[in-house]
Amino acid sequence: MMAEPIRDVAHLGHVELLTPKLEESRRFFLDVFGLHETDAEGGSRYLRGYGDYDRTTLKLTEAAEPGLGHVGWRAISPQALDRRVDGLERAGVGEGWIDGDIGHGPAYRFRDPDGHLMEIYYESERFRAGSEQRSYLPNQPQAFEGRGAGARRIDHLNLLCADVPRTSEFMHDVLGFRLLEEIVLDDARVAAWMSVTSQPHDIALTTDRSGACGRFHHLAYWVDNREDVLRAAELMMENDVFIECGPAKHSRTQGFYLYVYEPGGNRVEVFSGGFVVYAPDWPTVTWSTDTLGRGTAWGAEVPDSFHSYGTPPLRVAEEASIA
Amino acid sequence: MMAEPIRDVAHLGHVELLTPKLEESRRFFLDVFGLHETDAEGGSRYLRGYGDYDRTTLKLTEAAEPGLGHVGWRAISPQALDRRVDGLERAGVGEGWIDGDIGHGPAYRFRDPDGHLMEIYYESERFRAGSEQRSYLPNQPQAFEGRGAGARRIDHLNLLCADVPRTSEFMHDVLGFRLLEEIVLDDARVAAWMSVTSQPHDIALTTDRSGACGRFHHLAYWVDNREDVLRAAELMMENDVFIECGPAKHSRTQGFYLYVYEPGGNRVEVFSGGFVVYAPDWPTVTWSTDTLGRGTAWGAEVPDSFHSYGTPPLRVAEEASIA
Amino acid sequence: MMAEPIRDVAHLGHVELLTPKLEESRRFFLDVFGLHETDAEGGSRYLRGYGDYDRTTLKLTEAAEPGLGHVGWRAISPQALDRRVDGLERAGVGEGWIDGDIGHGPAYRFRDPDGHLMEIYYESERFRAGSEQRSYLPNQPQAFEGRGAGARRIDHLNLLCADVPRTSEFMHDVLGFRLLEEIVLDDARVAAWMSVTSQPHDIALTTDRSGACGRFHHLAYWVDNREDVLRAAELMMENDVFIECGPAKHSRTQGFYLYVYEPGGNRVEVFSGGFVVYAPDWPTVTWSTDTLGRGTAWGAEVPDSFHSYGTPPLRVAEEASIA
Amino acid sequence: MMAEPIRDVAHLGHVELLTPKLEESRRFFLDVFGLHETDAEGGSRYLRGYGDYDRTTLKLTEAAEPGLGHVGWRAISPQALDRRVDGLERAGVGEGWIDGDIGHGPAYRFRDPDGHLMEIYYESERFRAGSEQRSYLPNQPQAFEGRGAGARRIDHLNLLCADVPRTSEFMHDVLGFRLLEEIVLDDARVAAWMSVTSQPHDIALTTDRSGACGRFHHLAYWVDNREDVLRAAELMMENDVFIECGPAKHSRTQGFYLYVYEPGGNRVEVFSGGFVVYAPDWPTVTWSTDTLGRGTAWGAEVPDSFHSYGTPPLRVAEEASIA
Repeated sequence: MMAEPIRDVAHLGHVELLTPKLEESRRFFLDVFGLHETDAEGGSRYLRGYGDYDRTTLKLTEAAEPGLGHVGWRAISPQALDRRVDGLERAGVGEGWIDGDIGHGPAYRFRDPDGHLMEIYYESERFRAGSEQRSYLPNQPQAFEGRGAGARRIDHLNLLCADVPRTSEFMHDVLGFRLLEEIVLDDARVAAWMSVTSQPHDIALTTDRSGACGRFHHLAYWVDNREDVLRAAELMMENDVFIECGPAKHSRTQGFYLYVYEPGGNRVEVFSGGFVVYAPDWPTVTWSTDTLGRGTAWGAEVPDSFHSYGTPPLRVAEEASIA
Repeated sequence: MMAEPIRDVAHLGHVELLTPKLEESRRFFLDVFGLHETDAEGGSRYLRGYGDYDRTTLKLTEAAEPGLGHVGWRAISPQALDRRVDGLERAGVGEGWIDGDIGHGPAYRFRDPDGHLMEIYYESERFRAGSEQRSYLPNQPQAFEGRGAGARRIDHLNLLCADVPRTSEFMHDVLGFRLLEEIVLDDARVAAWMSVTSQPHDIALTTDRSGACGRFHHLAYWVDNREDVLRAAELMMENDVFIECGPAKHSRTQGFYLYVYEPGGNRVEVFSGGFVVYAPDWPTVTWSTDTLGRGTAWGAEVPDSFHSYGTPPLRVAEEASIA
Repeated sequence: MMAEPIRDVAHLGHVELLTPKLEESRRFFLDVFGLHETDAEGGSRYLRGYGDYDRTTLKLTEAAEPGLGHVGWRAISPQALDRRVDGLERAGVGEGWIDGDIGHGPAYRFRDPDGHLMEIYYESERFRAGSEQRSYLPNQPQAFEGRGAGARRIDHLNLLCADVPRTSEFMHDVLGFRLLEEIVLDDARVAAWMSVTSQPHDIALTTDRSGACGRFHHLAYWVDNREDVLRAAELMMENDVFIECGPAKHSRTQGFYLYVYEPGGNRVEVFSGGFVVYAPDWPTVTWSTDTLGRGTAWGAEVPDSFHSYGTPPLRVAEEASIA
Repeated sequence: MMAEPIRDVAHLGHVELLTPKLEESRRFFLDVFGLHETDAEGGSRYLRGYGDYDRTTLKLTEAAEPGLGHVGWRAISPQALDRRVDGLERAGVGEGWIDGDIGHGPAYRFRDPDGHLMEIYYESERFRAGSEQRSYLPNQPQAFEGRGAGARRIDHLNLLCADVPRTSEFMHDVLGFRLLEEIVLDDARVAAWMSVTSQPHDIALTTDRSGACGRFHHLAYWVDNREDVLRAAELMMENDVFIECGPAKHSRTQGFYLYVYEPGGNRVEVFSGGFVVYAPDWPTVTWSTDTLGRGTAWGAEVPDSFHSYGTPPLRVAEEASIA
């Protein structure tokens, strides 16, 4: 009998994004994307989707350049947290404990092999709606207001990696993420979709063709129906938000996507659909040269920028070198 | 530190429904509900949704009366199966092993306290699409044909129970189901929504007001969007299928529902939406007298039959006694 | 060869609703229904849907009781206006010309046989979006903001009539409305759906069982998809707006409906779908006792209030007399 | 006072498409597009959408090359037919009367200035559903079966023209089509969207860059919701039908489109949405160089083939000459 797999990470808890235009980014996420603001501290603003059970799922922090601040993963129990910290320390990637932040308790920080800063924690503060925000439905953390695209909850993120095999192995071996799908070209894994939940991906890792490390591709929030994604496109159009691609359907994950750039320069996604994986023994689906033409389900092509643009953006000299 | 909860059941694997009109039930599930048939053996037919990864998720068996045959739960690993069998034996509800059935290997059979027959197993046979059935998308078990309501995958079931507290405690204590929502009237739990996945319920238990034991309320299959539920209603209407209620939105689970009776008399549901629960420490939401008016989210009332009709149906004498 | 039918009325131009709670009604239509305000004058506010080409389609006027102010029909040409005024004068129902109102020029006023005040006009002022309101699409009168239910444009209205046959004949004979559908009970037409456009109804006339004259049943605005109606229901739920019935599908008109009461007491509808009638010789569809059970397409029943409540509401004594 | 505009054409009645692969085209339209077959005669098959009130709206005729057979317009009355025939004869484009065809009576044939064969008629045969095909709703010509993409009714067509200004003037002056939108480049109209109904176009005329005359761009059928277009894309994908572009939203017409090639080579569209025009005095919307970037609402680009491919296809020599 094979050993049982690690099942210690519950879900993606929050993401910190850096933005050189904090106020514009904030207004975009509130007015167009449809998030809510719960807290402000220093150069940071704390946001959430109306369906997030946590107090906050997005931390916006002012910085010179856009990009990823850090990724927070919630453990399923205090014991699970201890086990993962042990694993991270054994892997030699730990950076030690922080006291916590608005919305969560002590967190153990580490870097993935590509250098993205991550943390894992268990104690999380549940969002408590004020009387004005309370939903008619007691099983709903907050009333649906219908503002902007109405992003409901944090869904997944995508990180650019210089070395996808190495980072994806780390996410599997040390944190227990399952590799649901991959693209393999010339015997090398160039993209990986990994999950700890029933979602088709909690994190995607895709090759940074520039060779840079630690860059960010996109963060996605969930909406319930494909119609919500179409409606989001209408709002992006009317609000002069740059639509990079979509709405359309991915082949990998089967997600129905819309990618835009928020004012700070980070790519964000409105996402719905996708397949679910309840099978405990899902065999990795490998896409290779013969299936690559199926990049999107219905034939829409993604623009070159989708494969090259990330944050922080490359300097001109770097971009020239990969052309 | 509290002990960690049981996490050994992966998901609802399959349900066996009994029908006095096998051929009519079969035609309904194929032509109107949109399932596919994979096998036939004896008085049984084996069906599946195009998105089910398992070879079969619905077994239709000819019988004198409609109702539940049995419920099959898949374990997350061989070890998890062993642990649950130990637990069931300790609970004294075990009926022993069967060799398996089309689509799965050895299963341990037991009855919940209300008498519903269940089984748990690990070995499951993955569906292999023939060349005609293969999807353009290699991460999809079978091509979407668009036949009938296009039910995608098995979602959940609802069992009537004479004693909801007792059965729900059993499902939690022995099998590890989390109690996400409940209705409590006069200090007694009269309905329970329980889950082992991120779904708002893999099983619901509701009080059988007749006092009968072991009856069946409904089985639900998933479709991806609310529009698919509306479209299903059109098809039920045009095919003279009795629509009991919906499409509308439940308060509990937030599911978007459509309930119909299949020709054998069993209630089945086309379901979409609902909230997801990734929180490992979701506190049970208790609905009581002050929130009961919120039975459906938008005010549609469910008919009396929804609270009284189950399969097998009661005899006339029994029905009179509960009026 | 039969004479050619009258084709002089272009469409429903605007409706004036009376409300005892002007400010609350106004806030409802702006914040929840999603209309825009263009003008205020005296005790009236002028609103519009973002897709209405006219400057205003809804006039809210403060009054002691809710109900209909008047209905405005736009003629297809100045000549068509002259022809209809001739017809109205010959029919002896004219009340003479008014100078116009915000959004339109001279209008000829008249009453239908049940006493509802109507007017017909040709000159209409096109809405001119300010730079802040301008849509990315130059064929769209105003940007889609996504506020509230996002009602796009005025669609139709329903008037209660003591004598449906008489008013429907008037609408046909004098104004050229086609009778697309009717309910006939005991040889009497008790409801009529009439149109001058390709819509399944620009106006519906239904019997006022109280015997009162001149009452108002509802006014409907269009949204593009059924999903928009479902989303509107979410917003009504979260904003404590009374939902009388829906979302569901009517048999007559095939419209997908949601009926709510605005704070002033008038019933308003969010509407989508329906069949279109391009046939110039559409034969009236007659629903009678054998098809009456098909009041809604999928079986949902409308509550009694849907058949009795109108504005102004009846006094208690009147209501008792019809029970 | 200006003269009143012509209002004699009721709607697009039917289109005849030529196909070198009659049986494959037929199977596509039945199984994937979701039409129904009513008649077969000689080398032709007669089809219809379940929501078409006419007996047939699509005639498929075997031919050496794909392309347009003819376009049939229905007049609003016998008198209107007489008036238009007078106009066509005065314009010198008439080819005389034919006795009719399956589904309609005597038709007057003519060619537009670009050479496309058209006809106008009044007598039309209403579709009579057999007992098996009858809908639950008596206002619906035929039951919704849910087969394939479920195309509901014929919507519009697009013709390639060497000289768009000339053909669009003809359609306006002689047949009464309103010019709702146009693209003007270098003072020349290169595309025109024209309508006799409330639709944003019953016919579109776009410049054939090859200079060829009489070619066909596409024929569109309507579905009720954007979700239906997305669902159609799934079916096209699974049935190996070439998707040229979409689903996405046009800027012109605001239509939500999906373009595919049927097996015979003709481009066909599944269409929903769009704006409606009830205004009798809608001013033409002119798109010019500064608004041209808004070819689609959300930024998706249409491929080059969309601007060059038509049927019959050009021979290689011709194509080379326009590259």
